[in-house]
Amino acid sequence: MPYTAGVILSGCGFRDGAEIHEAVLTLLALDRMGVKALCMAPDMPQAKVVNHLTGKETAESRNVLVESARICRGEIVNIATVKAGSFDALILPGGYGAALNLSDFAKNGARATVHPEVARLVRETHKAKKPVCAICIAPAVIAAVLGKAGPTLTIGNDEGTAAALAACGAGHETCGVRDFVVDRKHRIVTTPAWMLGPSIAHVAEGIEKAVRETVALIGT
Amino acid sequence: MPYTAGVILSGCGFRDGAEIHEAVLTLLALDRMGVKALCMAPDMPQAKVVNHLTGKETAESRNVLVESARICRGEIVNIATVKAGSFDALILPGGYGAALNLSDFAKNGARATVHPEVARLVRETHKAKKPVCAICIAPAVIAAVLGKAGPTLTIGNDEGTAAALAACGAGHETCGVRDFVVDRKHRIVTTPAWMLGPSIAHVAEGIEKAVRETVALIGT
Repeated sequence: MPYTAGVILSGCGFRDGAEIHEAVLTLLALDRMGVKALCMAPDMPQAKVVNHLTGKETAESRNVLVESARICRGEIVNIATVKAGSFDALILPGGYGAALNLSDFAKNGARATVHPEVARLVRETHKAKKPVCAICIAPAVIAAVLGKAGPTLTIGNDEGTAAALAACGAGHETCGVRDFVVDRKHRIVTTPAWMLGPSIAHVAEGIEKAVRETVALIGT
Repeated sequence: MPYTAGVILSGCGFRDGAEIHEAVLTLLALDRMGVKALCMAPDMPQAKVVNHLTGKETAESRNVLVESARICRGEIVNIATVKAGSFDALILPGGYGAALNLSDFAKNGARATVHPEVARLVRETHKAKKPVCAICIAPAVIAAVLGKAGPTLTIGNDEGTAAALAACGAGHETCGVRDFVVDRKHRIVTTPAWMLGPSIAHVAEGIEKAVRETVALIGT
């Protein structure tokens, strides 16, 4: 039986949803390893909608699950229907959607709360000793849920964000875009991706390595 | 000086805009070769907006340039401002956006008309003997603009679509997803991508090869 990885999306576009490159590169890395992707997202309104040409917020309303479906060609389910038993590993691509929709980290930092279904699934996955991979700003979601367990994470080298993760109880390691940090005790893999850039080829290298490490942790 | 490739996007999502995987994989292939991407799209309303979760058309209105900006993190310009002198090669990822927004091929087949700025830029590029690469259904746009010159193209193996291309004057060669067709006389490279699938790793292989061939044709 091939492995399955749950992939939590948070919309479609880095300013108000999932970072599109990171999500696509995650799906590519999984497919190249023969791992099936089970894409999911919360069925909820986006915290905001941002015009990606101007960078300005608009008056529109969009749904996180509906917009996330664009990235995975409609092959997606409501996260509320998914249990940790449905997959072998869980991956969270980044984008502000992780800090706006999956959590309110963008607003509340170290006092962030996490969408209840996202928090439930991350906890279930950690409890089942299945690996979790978080990309870009998504480690903030992991820190908000599992920080008290003291996992070691990276979001690259941004001091303010690293301090917020530390305030949740997580350790932080500085990391380059082409690399990743692995916490073997907690089976958590993190990579900075577009927190650092500077270009898609760099981001792809880090994500490919992080996904490979995550899959290697299955069953350990 | 590194090369620059123009990339024409048609929205964000395969049912009403650019196919997201194809667009991202094009940007990845270019960046890995050290080629700069100049992303562009027409500033126009989308022909329609489709809910990618249900597959049903919605009452929303979205703009092709604004939605395309999601794929390239805001680094995009209005195609009306771009001339063929601004780049060394031109690439059109697919998605229904190519047949709904860049042209009306989805509705009118062999009698399709092409957005005037898209048609102008494809003609300018061809006249300047710079290579053009078209992915998935985007070869239909090339057939509608340059069909009378008799280029050889592929859209994979769909007989109806191939017949429509032939009715525009283009030759059609059947091609697998991991491969591409090159017309050296016209400097046109085409690959089927998600016209065939079955998965993102297959699509990535064909796009990587097609982009590499396109860049190799620069200056020939």
